[in-house]
Amino acid sequence: MMELVVCTTCRLPGFDPTADPDALRCGARLSDALAQAGIAHRRQECLSACARGCAVVLRGPGRWTYVQGGLDPDRDLDDLLTMIRAYGASTDGIVPWRDRPQVIRKNTIARIPPVEV
Amino acid sequence: MMELVVCTTCRLPGFDPTADPDALRCGARLSDALAQAGIAHRRQECLSACARGCAVVLRGPGRWTYVQGGLDPDRDLDDLLTMIRAYGASTDGIVPWRDRPQVIRKNTIARIPPVEV
Repeated sequence: MMELVVCTTCRLPGFDPTADPDALRCGARLSDALAQAGIAHRRQECLSACARGCAVVLRGPGRWTYVQGGLDPDRDLDDLLTMIRAYGASTDGIVPWRDRPQVIRKNTIARIPPVEV
Repeated sequence: MMELVVCTTCRLPGFDPTADPDALRCGARLSDALAQAGIAHRRQECLSACARGCAVVLRGPGRWTYVQGGLDPDRDLDDLLTMIRAYGASTDGIVPWRDRPQVIRKNTIARIPPVEV
């Protein structure tokens, strides 16, 4: 069992909120794209990783938690889907390095060990 | 109930490992200082927050998880102790902004919502 948490208030670095005040936040667009792809996830306002948006969390009981950033909804959706599947297929949340897309390798913000029972 | 996880492989920015190859990692020194202060915690090799050492995690059932970095064992121990106590005293892991020491405010790497039951 795994859970994906998506920050809906993230902005990509360089995003200009004054250009179109009605534009969706980048994180909300990422969430919408994941929903369109059929990926269940929890929407969360602000994961306090604002400097490294868009950010998501992968977690689950008995698994390592990964905080991933640097995700561009227009560019990185396929790579994120690859990572979500690989994370889900793992037993402990650790995806072998060779199976991690480049954007995941380069933008791991933190990893947290599973709670010991 | 709360748990503190301390990265024992963190190095402070600018730390020169060649200066004294036998020197303890900064994170290990932070862990030792916490132990000396009587603070129970879990030692963990690498939280993948290497650019923002020293890093720790505060977490617990029903609580927000906080990943905190930028902790200098020589400078920030008292502030970390203050934060640990405030986190422990909270019900949901959210410490009011006014009660967070400056080093905590400035170095929150990520926050993760509690698991929904």
